Amino acid sequence: MAVSNIRYGEGVTKEIGMDLQNLGARRVCLMTDKNLSQLPPVNAVLNSLAKYGINFQMYDNVRVEPTDQSFLDAIRFAKKGEFDAYVAVGGGSVIDTCKAANLYASSPTSDFLDYVNAPIGKGKPVTVPLKPLIAVPTTAGTGSETTGVAIFDFKELKVKTGIASRAIKPTLGIIDPLHTLSMPERIVANSGFDVLCHALESYTALPYNMRSPCPSNPINRPAYQGSNPISDVWALHALRIVAKYLKRAIRNPEDHEARANMHLASAFAGIGFGNAGVHLCHGMSYPISGLVKTYKPKDYNVDHSLVPHGLSVVLTSPAVFAFTAQIHPERHLEAAEILGADIRTARIKDAGFILAETLRKFLFDLNVDDGLAAIGYSKADIPALVKGTLPQERVTKLSPRPQTEEDLSALFEASMKLY
Amino acid sequence: MAVSNIRYGEGVTKEIGMDLQNLGARRVCLMTDKNLSQLPPVNAVLNSLAKYGINFQMYDNVRVEPTDQSFLDAIRFAKKGEFDAYVAVGGGSVIDTCKAANLYASSPTSDFLDYVNAPIGKGKPVTVPLKPLIAVPTTAGTGSETTGVAIFDFKELKVKTGIASRAIKPTLGIIDPLHTLSMPERIVANSGFDVLCHALESYTALPYNMRSPCPSNPINRPAYQGSNPISDVWALHALRIVAKYLKRAIRNPEDHEARANMHLASAFAGIGFGNAGVHLCHGMSYPISGLVKTYKPKDYNVDHSLVPHGLSVVLTSPAVFAFTAQIHPERHLEAAEILGADIRTARIKDAGFILAETLRKFLFDLNVDDGLAAIGYSKADIPALVKGTLPQERVTKLSPRPQTEEDLSALFEASMKLY
Repeated sequence: MAVSNIRYGEGVTKEIGMDLQNLGARRVCLMTDKNLSQLPPVNAVLNSLAKYGINFQMYDNVRVEPTDQSFLDAIRFAKKGEFDAYVAVGGGSVIDTCKAANLYASSPTSDFLDYVNAPIGKGKPVTVPLKPLIAVPTTAGTGSETTGVAIFDFKELKVKTGIASRAIKPTLGIIDPLHTLSMPERIVANSGFDVLCHALESYTALPYNMRSPCPSNPINRPAYQGSNPISDVWALHALRIVAKYLKRAIRNPEDHEARANMHLASAFAGIGFGNAGVHLCHGMSYPISGLVKTYKPKDYNVDHSLVPHGLSVVLTSPAVFAFTAQIHPERHLEAAEILGADIRTARIKDAGFILAETLRKFLFDLNVDDGLAAIGYSKADIPALVKGTLPQERVTKLSPRPQTEEDLSALFEASMKLY
Repeated sequence: MAVSNIRYGEGVTKEIGMDLQNLGARRVCLMTDKNLSQLPPVNAVLNSLAKYGINFQMYDNVRVEPTDQSFLDAIRFAKKGEFDAYVAVGGGSVIDTCKAANLYASSPTSDFLDYVNAPIGKGKPVTVPLKPLIAVPTTAGTGSETTGVAIFDFKELKVKTGIASRAIKPTLGIIDPLHTLSMPERIVANSGFDVLCHALESYTALPYNMRSPCPSNPINRPAYQGSNPISDVWALHALRIVAKYLKRAIRNPEDHEARANMHLASAFAGIGFGNAGVHLCHGMSYPISGLVKTYKPKDYNVDHSLVPHGLSVVLTSPAVFAFTAQIHPERHLEAAEILGADIRTARIKDAGFILAETLRKFLFDLNVDDGLAAIGYSKADIPALVKGTLPQERVTKLSPRPQTEEDLSALFEASMKLY
């Protein structure tokens, strides 16, 4: 396993100018989105760049839930700028876009599909050296500052896919909990659900020593290796923090302790799933986001319909864990207990049911939309949702329980209504 | 914080030839010690090098508890060989020696003292690029495969000191629990005590945000940063494994589960203390080892007197934690509980006493020598032991409670007899 460097503390963003000086950076690309460009996290970075006299160009055109087109726009900017370092200030959308910009600007003759995950793209290994990238996360969810993954919406195929390579992992993640104080309520909730599912999925993923095929040469092993004794530590620790702090972080923007802990939990869960992988909640979430109709979530200031990533992931979680618990029931029961279930008299064979009920209650208490139906899907959409899940084999194959198309249909159907 | 790559699993050593091929290595330096050179871990590496046609030279002259002279001998070998990659197979002595050899062979015009920790050496930052180093630990204690530290005995000054820089951290640690099956009983015990103290010291170390001076430029921050929310996760997790498995691992060489878990705990604790640091047990251990008289421990096949590192560290632990508990009593109490103490009716002000008693019982059960007196020290040696501790400021300053020379005297005196 591998972990990026991270630096944690209130106010540590102000050191970023020095970090760039230490890296010898002379032309920095600062990436963010239009909303953030006016907010304190970007201001803190701009102040530090000014203080240390760092020459930079700002790109604030990142799309929330990026697409191939929005990636390509950022890549064009990066190629033209001939930058020697990158700074990404934002949530997963910004950090992922910046990873892609750095990658393709460092490999200018590559086709876009070269590095996109197979079977959609060619999934080529990255062998070119990239420029340093410092990620400053402003949400508490993606963990993108710790992973080698960049996810986007492939418009033509109406499906989410991504690029996965250790080579695109940020050089440094600056985790400054001050940045989370400006997050609106639903963004805290949805990004927190992403942490919750990263932890639950990586803890229940197929164990690393049961994965097949296992490439004989270590260099060909995937970034997502299956659950293992190291990722387990991170997953459980992140889950405990979610159980303790997510509700508080959502309800009270002034609760520094809760928001700081969720910010760290996001990185912890990222280190866990960045090595172990995720499985069905994530695999099924990509078509849920990709096929969005007219849903516009509260608190997201965007001009297009979107299902926030964390929401698209968590809505299937009760059905998914009821389905997977057959394989590692004790881990499912342990997760339910951490999330507050009383398991003293529980039977191990009910582990899936108990975790599902615990999740439903957790989501209900947090006013989460009542299932896929509430965000605009109906039974008639299930075949398309299943079709959109099939190319996500990179993650779905890490489900501890193999699944047929019928199984996927049933999981989507069971997720139409939660309460 | 930063973590090396580690790979874990029974038999994964057989891939090392491929790893070296992937690194493009053409001339490999294989370092080990005379005992190990005949044992299965080295054989496994040799077989893999042969299978993948890797050209190498073996250096098996590493000294257990290395000295400046033994480091210099290895450095001469490394300089002469013009190697492009290093493999260290052994315990902390071998891995540390290999780190030093790689460093000075990569910086051939440097004086030996240039990189040695201040105030003994000049403590210069490492700016030269080093060659890849793959560490294959054969003990379950040092965690050296995960840290940027190399410790040696400075004969002239009769004191242990070291080199500390992120730059010397191994590129990859191969944690193959098969290698621990050949460890004799006392080596399991003593290396396990090192894990125990890494965990206890890093969990109770001065918090990262109370350390001073705090260099304003991040590049000048020390490798040992004080306890922090990330190192805490590793320290506690390692401590739980020690509590569950150390006794089993010592008593039964066939207990694969226990030995494998201690092997991982060693790396986990290493990641923790490699970022947080250690404090008084380690600071005081260096003169205890450095001033050794005639003590020759069971199970160590060497021709010189030595106090094994783990033993020199653990003998002062009851006195040290009774002393430091004033500052974070709740952490001391939590550690005692993990190690088996019943704290239901404990008073927080007794935390130090309770942890000390818990440690005494733990050591008594494991037949550990009864204090410093049992390994050849008397009251008359205390001034020299204190004098040898003073230059260890790099670690002693991480003690949560500051200490005078009188305090150190009292700690050594309280450690003369344990039971």
